[in-house]
Amino acid sequence: MKSDIEIAQEANIIPIMKVAETIGLSEDDVELYGKYKGKINLDVLEKNKNKEDGKLILVTAINPTPAGEGKSTVTVGLGEALCKLGKKAVIALREPSLGPVFGVKGGAAGGGYAQVVPMEDINLHFTGDMHAITSANNLLCAAIDNHIHQGNALNIDCRRIIFKRVLDMNDRALRNIVVALGGKINGFPREDGFTITVASEVMAILCLSTDLMDLKRRMGDIVIGYNLEGNPVYCRELHVEGAMAMLMKDAIKPNLVQTLENTPAIIHGGPFANIAHGCNSILATKMALKLGDYAVTEAGFGADLGAEKFFDIKCRYGGLKPSCVVIVATVRALKYNGGVKKEILSEANVDALKKGIVNLGGHIENIKKYGLPVVVALNKFITDKDEEINAIMEYCDSLGVKVSLSEVWAKGGEGGKDLAEKVIATIEGEKAEFKVLYDEKEPIKEKIETIACEIYGAKAVTFTSAAKKQIEELEKFDLDKLPICIAKTQYSFSDNPTLLGRPKDFEITVREVKISNGAGFIVALTGDIMTMPGLPKVPAANKMDIDSDGNIFGLF
Amino acid sequence: MKSDIEIAQEANIIPIMKVAETIGLSEDDVELYGKYKGKINLDVLEKNKNKEDGKLILVTAINPTPAGEGKSTVTVGLGEALCKLGKKAVIALREPSLGPVFGVKGGAAGGGYAQVVPMEDINLHFTGDMHAITSANNLLCAAIDNHIHQGNALNIDCRRIIFKRVLDMNDRALRNIVVALGGKINGFPREDGFTITVASEVMAILCLSTDLMDLKRRMGDIVIGYNLEGNPVYCRELHVEGAMAMLMKDAIKPNLVQTLENTPAIIHGGPFANIAHGCNSILATKMALKLGDYAVTEAGFGADLGAEKFFDIKCRYGGLKPSCVVIVATVRALKYNGGVKKEILSEANVDALKKGIVNLGGHIENIKKYGLPVVVALNKFITDKDEEINAIMEYCDSLGVKVSLSEVWAKGGEGGKDLAEKVIATIEGEKAEFKVLYDEKEPIKEKIETIACEIYGAKAVTFTSAAKKQIEELEKFDLDKLPICIAKTQYSFSDNPTLLGRPKDFEITVREVKISNGAGFIVALTGDIMTMPGLPKVPAANKMDIDSDGNIFGLF
Repeated sequence: MKSDIEIAQEANIIPIMKVAETIGLSEDDVELYGKYKGKINLDVLEKNKNKEDGKLILVTAINPTPAGEGKSTVTVGLGEALCKLGKKAVIALREPSLGPVFGVKGGAAGGGYAQVVPMEDINLHFTGDMHAITSANNLLCAAIDNHIHQGNALNIDCRRIIFKRVLDMNDRALRNIVVALGGKINGFPREDGFTITVASEVMAILCLSTDLMDLKRRMGDIVIGYNLEGNPVYCRELHVEGAMAMLMKDAIKPNLVQTLENTPAIIHGGPFANIAHGCNSILATKMALKLGDYAVTEAGFGADLGAEKFFDIKCRYGGLKPSCVVIVATVRALKYNGGVKKEILSEANVDALKKGIVNLGGHIENIKKYGLPVVVALNKFITDKDEEINAIMEYCDSLGVKVSLSEVWAKGGEGGKDLAEKVIATIEGEKAEFKVLYDEKEPIKEKIETIACEIYGAKAVTFTSAAKKQIEELEKFDLDKLPICIAKTQYSFSDNPTLLGRPKDFEITVREVKISNGAGFIVALTGDIMTMPGLPKVPAANKMDIDSDGNIFGLF
Repeated sequence: MKSDIEIAQEANIIPIMKVAETIGLSEDDVELYGKYKGKINLDVLEKNKNKEDGKLILVTAINPTPAGEGKSTVTVGLGEALCKLGKKAVIALREPSLGPVFGVKGGAAGGGYAQVVPMEDINLHFTGDMHAITSANNLLCAAIDNHIHQGNALNIDCRRIIFKRVLDMNDRALRNIVVALGGKINGFPREDGFTITVASEVMAILCLSTDLMDLKRRMGDIVIGYNLEGNPVYCRELHVEGAMAMLMKDAIKPNLVQTLENTPAIIHGGPFANIAHGCNSILATKMALKLGDYAVTEAGFGADLGAEKFFDIKCRYGGLKPSCVVIVATVRALKYNGGVKKEILSEANVDALKKGIVNLGGHIENIKKYGLPVVVALNKFITDKDEEINAIMEYCDSLGVKVSLSEVWAKGGEGGKDLAEKVIATIEGEKAEFKVLYDEKEPIKEKIETIACEIYGAKAVTFTSAAKKQIEELEKFDLDKLPICIAKTQYSFSDNPTLLGRPKDFEITVREVKISNGAGFIVALTGDIMTMPGLPKVPAANKMDIDSDGNIFGLF
């Protein structure tokens, strides 16, 4: 069996300008980065402002196994299949982070015969967006410590700086550090830490900005910490939001690439789905809606985290109205939700599957709360047994929900035609009356409780005393009128990764509440959320290589 | 008077493919990064291997003032002037670092009417080379701490890790840090620190590599530190040199841009001239030699540091043979060397100039020791007085050295025609018999003494006991047969920045000796050398901005 990179390297990739032309883009609209990557100029949105938007399809998933369930793969395959049916479809995906590429999970460019290419470039530096974010973020950090060193006119409390440095790397040694040691010339020592770039507020800002001036304003709005009087200190008080926006002048432009079947794919932004909102940029999605009759996009992790934030944060800020939601399920993940250990998920086990299938049911119910129709995509793995597949089909039938066996991993767009047809039929036949779950002007606790009870199925929310104090503080500074971004395990509806299936009667504990004022949301942390991953014993990096002709090995 | 960025923004910039065509490059040879930047594929060297190389001209300088003497400006102007005289000239420069851009010094793209464009892009992320270096460097760092965390099979001594993390930012708080705090899951705490990316060994490797496989080998050869038995530990023992080389697959390709007059300029690599060797990449210079009849390049700081390393490190590894050396002098810097304070350098002071002019004399003598002919370029500032200019002209005449008043800052190539004519006459009329200063197989102390006594004019070298021990260790591990890279102040021939002019009877103290085994040199540190700069009280970043049309302000 061929590896993803082998399949990608055999692709009939065509110059990106040819792909751009199929969606009406001219040479003036696209800046080339080599022959196969381009950045789309933002004025394309202005030029097309009178054109009607396409239909927005969100691809989300059930609670996954640690290996993931193939949301990106289904997203890519569905886009290709829509094109095979003669529709104009544009895909909108997130950008991969170098951390997972070198760690355990690998890249994020789809898989098998449903991939985006050039896979090597997309998974490495791509067009430099991650690095621009890293630079803008760390410029602000350098400005903070420099301000303190140069006299601290703002009276910044160095014990209460919440804005951290970042690197796009899995590096656990940087989670907790002490900086500015070594005496007077190096500044005032304090505790600090690095997060991975994709978990940064600057990444979230990139993804939620509607234009360059909105991005600059959001940069200025970042709360970097508190002063000794206890009041918030804003980035704009350090006068670097202009330089930060300048560093992002190219990063804000969505990237255009293609699938193995030359379907246009816009890849832009990749915020973590735990600490941030986990969706590609509003600008990328808007571009896909303007340039395609169908825009297919995805949200990170399971629907409890990913779709909820997609709706309540991204759609709210972007004014987006989805027409249909595809929930990706796999036999493996449903067995995992039924209690099977991840090492033996390849073995047939219909009983466990039937036990875990309530997880799918929960996500279907949730999506309907947003007023949206659902199609289930069963992403086929070669180890799946017919009786397992049939059990899922029957379950969906019993709920009156359309379900399709997706074979895009093995067959590309051809393997997704049935899914595409069902999605089109749903959009044409079922009403989508999208509404957000809560009003962002409600009190913080109420907003969190709404999400926890309505979407997760919790019976109550417990706030630690630290969280309570933080909420009071945000209310005091009028920083509370923002949507909520819950940081939670992706493995369960609850905040306990071992509560699989569709748990009931559990409580959610909010340990910490943090403002991301520039991004425009309030992060509520539950459980142990890692914002800087570590490398495994044998990192993927150890198997990577390049030969004298520039051929790459070991990337996946 | 217009600022550099205003002049740059008014340039008649042409598509980079048009510039590429003037030096025989086709679309297959160049990967576009937008319309005005491109990367040149390395096989251009192979395709042109039977073509005779052009003449190599090195632009260096006297000991500078803190503001710099305009080496890049003269380099750009000289290249343009050669083209104006009907010659095919290609310029080869270093890439700017974001650190100085946001700090005090500003960018590095020439100045006035002798600039390279697009100035904004070159001074910001350019084509991502700095970020690729940062990623490759920090992947190795993450691998080191991960190895220790995962059992430390190599027995790495966490007190003796010499390979540091990097960021392309002026951030003094990161100079001395403690990492891996917070308990078992975060690894073993140890002292660490960040250097600025341009001061990294990976940057030096990029600049000294002759192809991708040479780069990979050099990555593997990096000594990351020592094990508990006291033996060196190499990067290759951590198995990440393949992934590091993979991250550098595009960064290794030289970047093509143009001057304000559309002269081709290759900008590639920018190692610090104090801790590293301070020259652009061997590949960029070789490319310029293949594609032009004249290749004009520069070396960092004054000739004592920059030209010495250019000859003894870069030319040695690249097999390069310069034909002529241009020494840039300014009225201001000669007065500075004559004892005038930097605040009043604009005032006329022929006496101080005549006192400081011995600095120029010293550099002229040194260049001749390498068997090379010299032309002095007097880089004109608007505050210069005629009698000051005449004094320099007379001094050069008295030494029998050609001198030219360069007005490229104010007039572009037109202002450098006289210089270009004198350079051509020198190359055609005077013999260049280049030889390096020392045999790299000599003992470390002898090599250092040769540089200090022959080039700096020191009477002796003192080695601290720490340095002596380090030298013995390198000899024991057979890591001593490499050229020397001296880290020294740029303001003086000596290691004391206040000893101006042409000091005599001084001693050089070597405080520390450090192996950069991948780069292929031994760093000898004298005085206090900063490998991570800090931001000033009001950083340049504070005045930078971007408007809704993407126009940039405050970059210089």
